[in-house]
Amino acid sequence: MIEQALTAIDWTTEPRNLYEPIGYTLAAGGKRIRPTLVLMACDLWNGDKKEALPAALAVEIFHNFTLLHDDLMDNADMRRGKPTVHKKWDANTAILSGDAMTIKAYEMLERIPERHLKKCLHLFTKMALEICEGQQYDIDFESRSDVSAEEYLNMIRLKTAVLLGSALKIGATLADAPEHDAELLYNFGINIGMAFQLKDDLLDVYGDPETFGKKTGGDILCNKKTFMLIAAQKQATGAVKNELEKWLSAHDYIPKEKIAAVTAIYDKLSIKAICEKKMDEYYSLALKNLAEISVDNNKKTPLKELAEKLMKRNK
Amino acid sequence: MIEQALTAIDWTTEPRNLYEPIGYTLAAGGKRIRPTLVLMACDLWNGDKKEALPAALAVEIFHNFTLLHDDLMDNADMRRGKPTVHKKWDANTAILSGDAMTIKAYEMLERIPERHLKKCLHLFTKMALEICEGQQYDIDFESRSDVSAEEYLNMIRLKTAVLLGSALKIGATLADAPEHDAELLYNFGINIGMAFQLKDDLLDVYGDPETFGKKTGGDILCNKKTFMLIAAQKQATGAVKNELEKWLSAHDYIPKEKIAAVTAIYDKLSIKAICEKKMDEYYSLALKNLAEISVDNNKKTPLKELAEKLMKRNK
Repeated sequence: MIEQALTAIDWTTEPRNLYEPIGYTLAAGGKRIRPTLVLMACDLWNGDKKEALPAALAVEIFHNFTLLHDDLMDNADMRRGKPTVHKKWDANTAILSGDAMTIKAYEMLERIPERHLKKCLHLFTKMALEICEGQQYDIDFESRSDVSAEEYLNMIRLKTAVLLGSALKIGATLADAPEHDAELLYNFGINIGMAFQLKDDLLDVYGDPETFGKKTGGDILCNKKTFMLIAAQKQATGAVKNELEKWLSAHDYIPKEKIAAVTAIYDKLSIKAICEKKMDEYYSLALKNLAEISVDNNKKTPLKELAEKLMKRNK
Repeated sequence: MIEQALTAIDWTTEPRNLYEPIGYTLAAGGKRIRPTLVLMACDLWNGDKKEALPAALAVEIFHNFTLLHDDLMDNADMRRGKPTVHKKWDANTAILSGDAMTIKAYEMLERIPERHLKKCLHLFTKMALEICEGQQYDIDFESRSDVSAEEYLNMIRLKTAVLLGSALKIGATLADAPEHDAELLYNFGINIGMAFQLKDDLLDVYGDPETFGKKTGGDILCNKKTFMLIAAQKQATGAVKNELEKWLSAHDYIPKEKIAAVTAIYDKLSIKAICEKKMDEYYSLALKNLAEISVDNNKKTPLKELAEKLMKRNK
């Protein structure tokens, strides 16, 4: 349903230089998890998925907008195996097409049934601002060396988890779910989102490059203050601490050597297990949220299976 | 009312690097014409200006967002006598704060009375997309030498006039104006906007630098395909045509000399009068639109006076 609706949007209209990069970005694929969550939430209360489709598309378009502008800000060359918009076109094209994408996402929201419009508009806008805040914290943390685990977890909540929670809550709202249940589903999304991002960080170090689809060690090379690095800095003492700090402040090094050395320190400090424990905590909280929602258990199976799939994934 | 409401918004919240540049941009002033149009339109039908204020603020925040991102794309150093956001902070700050500003504009729209929400959201989103389209055409035209007068006029309609027309129509909608009158007021705004931009182009060549507040000749230096340049290219023949083309393709020149030479060509071809005639056409159309609106004539006086002021301005 989502793929079909996305394909049906005409991005060949004038001015071409504005709309073509949007079509290019949306055609690059991705897992479409977020719009699927809107529809799954709607389905949980037997809502009309056709009525929820515009909101699902808005969520997917907005998500892809954030990737487009984030890639520009990070000066990333590739996304999903294709050149990023600012590489294929230029920076100004990436800025302006991204701006138009945000507005196109809001245009989708116009199609929401009027009785749900105000509520969904509020949920969407709150989410969109929080994602900007998360991105800002992510940027701020690059130039700080004292980021705490709490700060990191709050950053990924804003940057990643809020979109999953909001997608679900918007879907629930469109199906007239009771407010308390909609909130439980939002929290399910937040907790799955937290576990999802921690898994991402873990795969960036421990993923198999063949199945992961991208090079590992990127976070280590740029000293990204992930939960894993923060945990390592906290756990390390003596010579291990000195070695870790040496690598963090090193300017001239062979990338492969830095990745191997920092990974070895993580191994020594059982950082993988610490990260997996944190992930499992969030996963358990998510399952608890889901269990408390007052709908038939068998209706929850698809969401439970999706959550499991996201946790077990190796790419 | 507008200034007070804008000042009341707290931009010192965290993350500071996201919200501070927004406060900085909005505090730089400007004429606040666009939000004033929302309230004036509302007043034309004795609507509740307090109800229209959030939409007025949304329009002003969105307008300032477009200036912020446009300045980044043009790499402009100054805006309203202050360094632009990407100069005072950096490009990434300008990108992300601009993104948050768009969303903040939509956040304001949440406060629109629910019976008008869907309509106003539609008007706002249509306008926002058209402004992006106008900006894209403006960028596209930089690398083209065959821009027609019609194309230029369509570009400024999208980039400048639509915002004035939409501000008025949103205000009219919030005051429950009849659809036909709201449309006439929209057209009044479009025509005033066209005349306003042509006046801007004219002042860029013929403005008194002392009262204009910025250097004149900027459009001439960058070969901007304004209505005036396009008219000059059309009118010029023989030696005058050759001289104009020589200056347009010149790489090494003294800026003052190029400005003086192209202005002399404009003088020879009566381009000022041609531009003023076009301006007056739009101004007359605007006054005709206003006259046709079925409200008491004395209620229209403030809008008529504002239009006159915008036409007579010398800065």
